[in-house]
Amino acid sequence: MAAVALLLPAVRAEISLMPVPSSLQAGSGALPLTGKFTVAFDAYREKRLDDAVNRMMHRLARKTGLQFGPAMAKAAPDAALVIRCVRAGKPVQSVNEDEAYQLTVTPERATLTAQNPLGVLRGLETLIQLANINADGFAIPAVTIDDHPRFPWRGMLIDVSRHFMPLDVIRRNLDGMAAVKMNVLHWHLSDDQGFRVESKVYPKLQQDGSDGKFYTQEQIRGIIEYARERGIRVVPEFDIPGHTSAILTGYPKLATDPSDLKIGRHFGIFDDCMDPSNEAVYAWLDPFIGEMARLFPDEYFHIGGDEVNGKQWSASTRIKAFEQAHKMPTGKPGNEAIHRYFNERVLVMLKRHGKKMEGWDEILNPDLPKDIVIQSWRGQKSLAEAATNGFTGILSSGYYLDHMDKASTHYAVDPLTKQTADLTETQKKLVLGGESCMWGEYVSPENIDGRIWPRNAVIAERLWSPQSVTDPGDMYKRMERVSRELEYAGTLHRINYQVMLDRLAGSAPVGPVKVLADVVEAGSLGVRARDHKYTTDEPLNRLPDTVLPESDVARHFTTLVASAKDPAGSAQIRHWLITWRDNDARLQPIIAQSALLKGSAPASQMLAEVAKIGLEALDAIDAGKHLDQAWATRTKTRLTAAARPVSEVRIGIVAAVQALADQAH
Amino acid sequence: MAAVALLLPAVRAEISLMPVPSSLQAGSGALPLTGKFTVAFDAYREKRLDDAVNRMMHRLARKTGLQFGPAMAKAAPDAALVIRCVRAGKPVQSVNEDEAYQLTVTPERATLTAQNPLGVLRGLETLIQLANINADGFAIPAVTIDDHPRFPWRGMLIDVSRHFMPLDVIRRNLDGMAAVKMNVLHWHLSDDQGFRVESKVYPKLQQDGSDGKFYTQEQIRGIIEYARERGIRVVPEFDIPGHTSAILTGYPKLATDPSDLKIGRHFGIFDDCMDPSNEAVYAWLDPFIGEMARLFPDEYFHIGGDEVNGKQWSASTRIKAFEQAHKMPTGKPGNEAIHRYFNERVLVMLKRHGKKMEGWDEILNPDLPKDIVIQSWRGQKSLAEAATNGFTGILSSGYYLDHMDKASTHYAVDPLTKQTADLTETQKKLVLGGESCMWGEYVSPENIDGRIWPRNAVIAERLWSPQSVTDPGDMYKRMERVSRELEYAGTLHRINYQVMLDRLAGSAPVGPVKVLADVVEAGSLGVRARDHKYTTDEPLNRLPDTVLPESDVARHFTTLVASAKDPAGSAQIRHWLITWRDNDARLQPIIAQSALLKGSAPASQMLAEVAKIGLEALDAIDAGKHLDQAWATRTKTRLTAAARPVSEVRIGIVAAVQALADQAH
Repeated sequence: MAAVALLLPAVRAEISLMPVPSSLQAGSGALPLTGKFTVAFDAYREKRLDDAVNRMMHRLARKTGLQFGPAMAKAAPDAALVIRCVRAGKPVQSVNEDEAYQLTVTPERATLTAQNPLGVLRGLETLIQLANINADGFAIPAVTIDDHPRFPWRGMLIDVSRHFMPLDVIRRNLDGMAAVKMNVLHWHLSDDQGFRVESKVYPKLQQDGSDGKFYTQEQIRGIIEYARERGIRVVPEFDIPGHTSAILTGYPKLATDPSDLKIGRHFGIFDDCMDPSNEAVYAWLDPFIGEMARLFPDEYFHIGGDEVNGKQWSASTRIKAFEQAHKMPTGKPGNEAIHRYFNERVLVMLKRHGKKMEGWDEILNPDLPKDIVIQSWRGQKSLAEAATNGFTGILSSGYYLDHMDKASTHYAVDPLTKQTADLTETQKKLVLGGESCMWGEYVSPENIDGRIWPRNAVIAERLWSPQSVTDPGDMYKRMERVSRELEYAGTLHRINYQVMLDRLAGSAPVGPVKVLADVVEAGSLGVRARDHKYTTDEPLNRLPDTVLPESDVARHFTTLVASAKDPAGSAQIRHWLITWRDNDARLQPIIAQSALLKGSAPASQMLAEVAKIGLEALDAIDAGKHLDQAWATRTKTRLTAAARPVSEVRIGIVAAVQALADQAH
Repeated sequence: MAAVALLLPAVRAEISLMPVPSSLQAGSGALPLTGKFTVAFDAYREKRLDDAVNRMMHRLARKTGLQFGPAMAKAAPDAALVIRCVRAGKPVQSVNEDEAYQLTVTPERATLTAQNPLGVLRGLETLIQLANINADGFAIPAVTIDDHPRFPWRGMLIDVSRHFMPLDVIRRNLDGMAAVKMNVLHWHLSDDQGFRVESKVYPKLQQDGSDGKFYTQEQIRGIIEYARERGIRVVPEFDIPGHTSAILTGYPKLATDPSDLKIGRHFGIFDDCMDPSNEAVYAWLDPFIGEMARLFPDEYFHIGGDEVNGKQWSASTRIKAFEQAHKMPTGKPGNEAIHRYFNERVLVMLKRHGKKMEGWDEILNPDLPKDIVIQSWRGQKSLAEAATNGFTGILSSGYYLDHMDKASTHYAVDPLTKQTADLTETQKKLVLGGESCMWGEYVSPENIDGRIWPRNAVIAERLWSPQSVTDPGDMYKRMERVSRELEYAGTLHRINYQVMLDRLAGSAPVGPVKVLADVVEAGSLGVRARDHKYTTDEPLNRLPDTVLPESDVARHFTTLVASAKDPAGSAQIRHWLITWRDNDARLQPIIAQSALLKGSAPASQMLAEVAKIGLEALDAIDAGKHLDQAWATRTKTRLTAAARPVSEVRIGIVAAVQALADQAH
């Protein structure tokens, strides 16, 4: 344990915000934060703002352990924080609504000014992050902040179809999103593996398509209200015409091929698909869209439209006849034409029900009206193409949380780089922002927080902060701090990790399990799909489900290797390598007693193997010797093998050990 | 981290239950626990039992990470668990209600039999604890258990007056109590620092006596129902005539001395007291007792009656006159007579409202009816005295959780030892059991779980299991396992510890804070009261509030020192001592930046100091040398100093280091 302490560098005690504001000037001194902290409004006030202040006080109580009295000051001059909100927001939050705020903190008082309640919400989150302990107590450092988002659309997709997520999961992740100023929950509510909303018009949707796991309309309204209170829009996605196995299970008459329809249990792209040539499909869709359009007040309605493999369309003589009658090219890739036809029919319905259309890259079609939003899973090229044609778009390519990439990888992805960098300024304005995507194949209500946080915070920063804010080293320091902030906000990414480790250990000591878990990283979607035949029924309770996408320990070890030439650094490196080398012998008996750990034995052995190589290199370095070419070649081969996923996880220190080996050669 | 793993001995993978059942026979094989596990009732069934089964499945899901379908089997023969409950329980759970159960597990099926739903509830908790991971998966080992409690009254007092505890604290601790088969929540609802129940008859009780922190009657009914569902009675305590500052604040006419009445902010024994000579007091009390007797359905009503210092009575000429008029001895210790008079008047009211009286030792009076319960904070002597006079009683002396004693200390306290051991068998039956006491001076909603759990589980075992179950080594192994069980049941003793450590560290790495926190122990009530002038307003967010009453690390280190003569043991001991010695240098810069840690600097230095002594001893031992008498004398002096509380905590390894020093001398 002491070793961890040695390894983690001291995070800056001064101002550390994520996302970084557009403009910040540090002042001198600080406003003390005590149990007597109170708030006053001196302009527009509404219940949403009062609730936000009460939540802030609750969060500050968790963060500080202070006991606060009632939040509202009896008289404005007594208040430590004065909130000046100019006017009410729109009844339904819109994409271009003003989120700017100004926050001035002096040793006497904090003043938060915004045109709109959204700005107040954003500013309160900044204030919470500013509040920190110092040698004298808790305080908010004197500062002048003038802040506004770079992009108006900063969202996260949560897929609740592959694995259903109970309301508390949605709520606490909305709290997490609000903490890093995200403003759109893209709720992926329907896919092959489940339809998750109560429909009163078509009750077989939930009866036959959800295994009993769905949200009632009242619960949906509750979440929309919960999100609105936090300045977050809720955009529903009902993916059509593909990804519809769950819908078609209850309504087979809509299917291109109605044989063998059932809720999907496996993952991947299914053949099941609605039949665009069947007029009954449109007759069915209109009341459905109407019902959901009334339930979800947002101006956008996401129709998916992705990954239609077209196999059933190509195989259907009925569709071929329809295509010919409508003078469409037939078969692949001509399926695009009938898909386009489908989208245009759907668009008419969306308009009738007062909605703008949103969909994935595949729906892009120059004939569509300019107010649609293209969500790009393919990359900046699609966005550039959309913008060139006058369409708005958002980026999700590069922000897929289920790919288990490092935070720095996501951080480096900018909606206005590559092809979009060449757009005119006017066209660039059509790029509204982006959304991270938490696809649900390998997440449970228990491990989803660890898949989302803290990495999602750096995507939030990319979409809020100035484009020039890009330093990954600084980002990681702030990400580690925001990870604790998120814990105070209620996400369970730290807590559930510990609970899952305890379970893996069973009745054995958890220590050796944690040593391994802390230094490996969760395998990506592809790794999971390859190594293990998962279904929606498979419990997600093993090591690859537990470990995080990015290992803090491995990252700090890598930094240590890169920066430490001094003996103290060497001793720390050695301590870690010995710990990892020796852990296997301790862990294997525990693995032998735990069916949940059984598959992880190779990862434990591989970690020991890598650590041994690291120690060979370190011995040479410390002795001032150089290892020969044969050793270097053999080592490279061994480490290349070790870099491949094992037991559905990645050993996080392989590159660092290779760097040590390079030093020793 | 690896070091912790090294240090903690493997906990037995086989059957490990807390409390230990009265009779257990291990069978061969095990019943597999998979996602298909279902339950059937084949005799009496009621909603409470259905709810209990659903809760069990939810707990098993948390424990195993398995996804279960609906709990109830479609047909009884398909069920993995068959529950045979003979009849309904009483509408209001009573003290002598049957809690026995028989649980038979074979590789094919589990069968749980009980006369009464209470037995089913107890048996389900046993089943949850039996379910564990092995090399093949989760399973419930084959076993035949015939179990019943040794004592019918196994409770915990929670004081919500000194610090108010929100409903979720009460609920999750009821879950914890149920998990270890406790059956009474003694709810200490009124004291000098707050009156915590909504009264409709006397609303100034909560308006003037609670700082706005009280339970509505609806909330109280909700908790009673929540407890009943878990087989737990709720006995309210309204402490009179002393400990009444909060009551008297709203109703000063009841006071002996009505000057300067206000809610208590400090702790200790207050002078404020009701006036037993004032007939208006009884006129006031009767409707109050009536209202609360209706609200709380339990047959017992606790009137406190403790710690009346009598100062105001002795000073009152009015009371003196009353005493003389009633031919009572006057003044101290004659105050006992007027206190007795008061109790007798209250007893009449309790009877009228259908309640039996319960009170602390001080109420004992041979003239009282035999159905009262004496709760002894003084010890077995009071209980023996009560039983000799035919009164029932319960033991709390030795079970005060706020004293921060080790689990083994509580474990060694038995209601039927010392003076009670000499009672006749009939008299022994009058000793109904015991209650742990979580007094609220130094607990917050955040740290209370860590004060209660897991230690409370060993008190629960003392009161449930056969008297012969006393081995502390075995107890500690099982306590460590039940600590994880409790986490699955929802208590936050492990989670909140981590959250509080993060806060102490502020933006600095938490490692060095944790190294210190893990090896020190929370100071007792006396230590807290002495070192720091606490009030109810003081935040409980510093190191002494965070650290646990008993350090697992220190206990394991002590075991290591006592048992390890081999080089591996010596290496582990050395590793720990070096960690502790070197931690101070890492921790002091963090302390310098955190007002919350400021007071803990001496503890950190002292730990380093003790570790240095340990290393001196270990060097000598490893070198086969003996240190001289001067060293031994100097060391004893230094360690005696180190054994005293410092920074409101205790260094947990002082005795172990003394043992090392003894080996080296």
